[in-house]
Amino acid sequence: MEKISKVLIANRGEIALRIIRACKELDITSVAIFSEVDVEGVWVRKADECYPIMGDAMKAYLDYEVIISLAKKANCDAIHPGYGFLSENAQFAQACEDNGIIFIGPKPEHIALFGDKMASKIAMKEVGVPVLEGTDEPINDVKEAENIAQNIGFPVIIKAAFGGGGRGMRIVRNKKDFKQMFESATSEAIKFFGRGEVFIEKFVENPRHIEVQIIADKYGNVLHLGERDCSIQRRHQKVIEIAPSPRLTNEARKELYRIATKAMFKLGYESVGTVEFLLDSQDNIYFIEMNTRVQVEHPVTEIISGVDIIQRMIQIAEGDKLQMLQEDVKFRGYAIEFRINAENPQKNFIPSVGTITKYLTPGGPGVRLDTSIYSGYKVLANYDSMVGKLIVWSLDWQGAVKKAKRALDEFYIEGFPTNISLHREIVRDNDFKEGKFNTNYLDEKLETFTLSGEQHIKEEEEKVAKIISFIAKIKQKNLKVKH
Amino acid sequence: MEKISKVLIANRGEIALRIIRACKELDITSVAIFSEVDVEGVWVRKADECYPIMGDAMKAYLDYEVIISLAKKANCDAIHPGYGFLSENAQFAQACEDNGIIFIGPKPEHIALFGDKMASKIAMKEVGVPVLEGTDEPINDVKEAENIAQNIGFPVIIKAAFGGGGRGMRIVRNKKDFKQMFESATSEAIKFFGRGEVFIEKFVENPRHIEVQIIADKYGNVLHLGERDCSIQRRHQKVIEIAPSPRLTNEARKELYRIATKAMFKLGYESVGTVEFLLDSQDNIYFIEMNTRVQVEHPVTEIISGVDIIQRMIQIAEGDKLQMLQEDVKFRGYAIEFRINAENPQKNFIPSVGTITKYLTPGGPGVRLDTSIYSGYKVLANYDSMVGKLIVWSLDWQGAVKKAKRALDEFYIEGFPTNISLHREIVRDNDFKEGKFNTNYLDEKLETFTLSGEQHIKEEEEKVAKIISFIAKIKQKNLKVKH
Repeated sequence: MEKISKVLIANRGEIALRIIRACKELDITSVAIFSEVDVEGVWVRKADECYPIMGDAMKAYLDYEVIISLAKKANCDAIHPGYGFLSENAQFAQACEDNGIIFIGPKPEHIALFGDKMASKIAMKEVGVPVLEGTDEPINDVKEAENIAQNIGFPVIIKAAFGGGGRGMRIVRNKKDFKQMFESATSEAIKFFGRGEVFIEKFVENPRHIEVQIIADKYGNVLHLGERDCSIQRRHQKVIEIAPSPRLTNEARKELYRIATKAMFKLGYESVGTVEFLLDSQDNIYFIEMNTRVQVEHPVTEIISGVDIIQRMIQIAEGDKLQMLQEDVKFRGYAIEFRINAENPQKNFIPSVGTITKYLTPGGPGVRLDTSIYSGYKVLANYDSMVGKLIVWSLDWQGAVKKAKRALDEFYIEGFPTNISLHREIVRDNDFKEGKFNTNYLDEKLETFTLSGEQHIKEEEEKVAKIISFIAKIKQKNLKVKH
Repeated sequence: MEKISKVLIANRGEIALRIIRACKELDITSVAIFSEVDVEGVWVRKADECYPIMGDAMKAYLDYEVIISLAKKANCDAIHPGYGFLSENAQFAQACEDNGIIFIGPKPEHIALFGDKMASKIAMKEVGVPVLEGTDEPINDVKEAENIAQNIGFPVIIKAAFGGGGRGMRIVRNKKDFKQMFESATSEAIKFFGRGEVFIEKFVENPRHIEVQIIADKYGNVLHLGERDCSIQRRHQKVIEIAPSPRLTNEARKELYRIATKAMFKLGYESVGTVEFLLDSQDNIYFIEMNTRVQVEHPVTEIISGVDIIQRMIQIAEGDKLQMLQEDVKFRGYAIEFRINAENPQKNFIPSVGTITKYLTPGGPGVRLDTSIYSGYKVLANYDSMVGKLIVWSLDWQGAVKKAKRALDEFYIEGFPTNISLHREIVRDNDFKEGKFNTNYLDEKLETFTLSGEQHIKEEEEKVAKIISFIAKIKQKNLKVKH
């Protein structure tokens, strides 16, 4: 076991701060990097040391040769990649290893395997995981296609192999329609893209996105920390994440845990990771992908399990054995995470920029805020629009939704539009409150929402202004208020 | 069961906001009151309705006739008193009842009983609680005094009945010294106060202050929510509160729970409340007082138990039966609360006033902040100096201390001195880290602490300023940084 004493954090924003916090709590020296435009980032000031990477703002966090040479220069014995940027880059993980630096994450071969969609599907299928079946190669023969569709099982989706945008795409729900649908898909594909070849894939109707958090040490101990329901998405980007899933049966839950832990054990996975699945309305389970890194939504799992995922990830990289057993992991209550994005819900979620002129944050029981923004913070256009995460917790699902409502109402960022108003609508929606949602939820709901921005805060301010002038008048007139 | 639909909050500051949050999460309309100087309080804007009480700033929250008439005018069916102010005023609780308004708290007779130190000692003794024995009346006969002392058991403390400030006070540790000590105490008392009568009371050496949180419904169901260690005090004011106590034996813990719940059951107590004890180094237990209200330090219990104490308090007042059993209350980890006071540790803790010009709050996992202050907030001299509470949590005690260290380091209030620098010293102290503290802890440690204020934040700012100028120089010279 080699104790890690100094970690370079190859990331920015809230996750850089999150990792620094974990380092501080583990008595590990933290080293931040930052691009020219990020010099005022909170993680820069909170890290024990910090180094600028000059030049292109985006490349700063991607240039792994520079990052590794900096880590060596600063005598770091480990690098934490966070999420995004270099976190799922197997070459980077290998280069760390080659330079005698611990990469805080899984082994390079696992990153490479799960970075390849087709290879990971094959590998997972081999260890007993139900996958989303489909053709590996484009086909254009209707008989062959029909056989494949029948093997996969209906419904299937036919997709133009050389197209996109929904053209040449057909969902086929039973065998008798297949031939006609196939022909109309291929002819449409020829018309629009000049080529008629298609892919055939299992189609999951109104799926829920459910993922299992895995934690595994170097000694074959693989545990799960429960599941997260990430069905609330916009354009395949998660918007809200929930642990545990509010409408999952216990049978399906156990099956997910069993499938995920067994597969990770058989594949010899190390570190933390997430196995993502789609579930249809009959609770059929389909593996979609494995994320070989810490995820944006890890806090909901931390709250219900009590386990600090980032600290554990570092300890596993040090060679620590997981001291806990599966039965030691006890879940409590429900946690919901809301991604706070600098974007304008009233203008089709266009990313927004600006400086925070007023900043009121929610607090009190069951509220966690992970963010690196503050009053005076300037949102940059250079990076992802996510500026923070609000996470709420309560002993039961209805309590968590009510907690979310009051916490979102307290949250006020003046200076640029955010998606807080979207979240405020969602937590007032009856389907959401009842846990009735799948990955189509937001597409269907968005039109019905009134995205009024921060009107409620303006009203509060008007109220206070009125009271102030009322009191001033009373005092001026030297009148006594009668109750 | 009468459902409460509208609550007047007869309080201010963080606890008023805390109660409003609970109301919002229970779908109860909240009504705030505020004094002339408190018009910009966050609780005023967050409540659904608000009413000013003109005139003296302090009296505003104490004038119960005005408050009750306001509650009636606003059609409130209940009043929550918070802590301090009217919270332990039996007449107020009775007046609420007489006016058909639910007082969210215990019955008036229990408030009255526990408001009388001597009566509550007798009542608790009768239901089997070990109390801090002592004379009820001043005495001056040495033989009688010696008999009393022997009955109480040594050590005892002799206190001048008509004096104070330590004059005429003697701690007697064994019988053979008693006569001489008694005579020197009485003669000193005569010399300083003209009268020689004294009280004799059990003396607890280096006690720990441990209290048990009680929750009881109207149907005789009494549960405990664990204990809190509030030994870290300055001038008998709690400064830091911890749940559970880090160095309590399980035997003593169980005994405390048994004593407290049995007594409250026998006395027919309702609502939430706290039974306070002193424990000596041999774990002997002495009841000191009962607090018949929610306490400042309730959050640490909420965090480890998962129970929302304020919500439960309201539900009990509505006539709800406690649905949970004692075995359903599961504790997890350690929570520490730090009272954030506007006071200057470098100047003997003199209260400070001022306006917040910069405000950085801690966040991330295991951090809760209960406060009604914000950037731009003005601290007033009219009220108690406590402006908020930082609460941290971790699965184990050492983790909680490290969490506290990093969270306190993140907390920055510019505009007036606070006691954050005191807390930063305490969490670095080895005795604290090892859980070695009793009520003398702060008196003994204060001299050894370097209370350097927010020097670490200034250093961070200097660091950032240096980096900014460094980068500006590089860009000006158009040089490339070599790594």
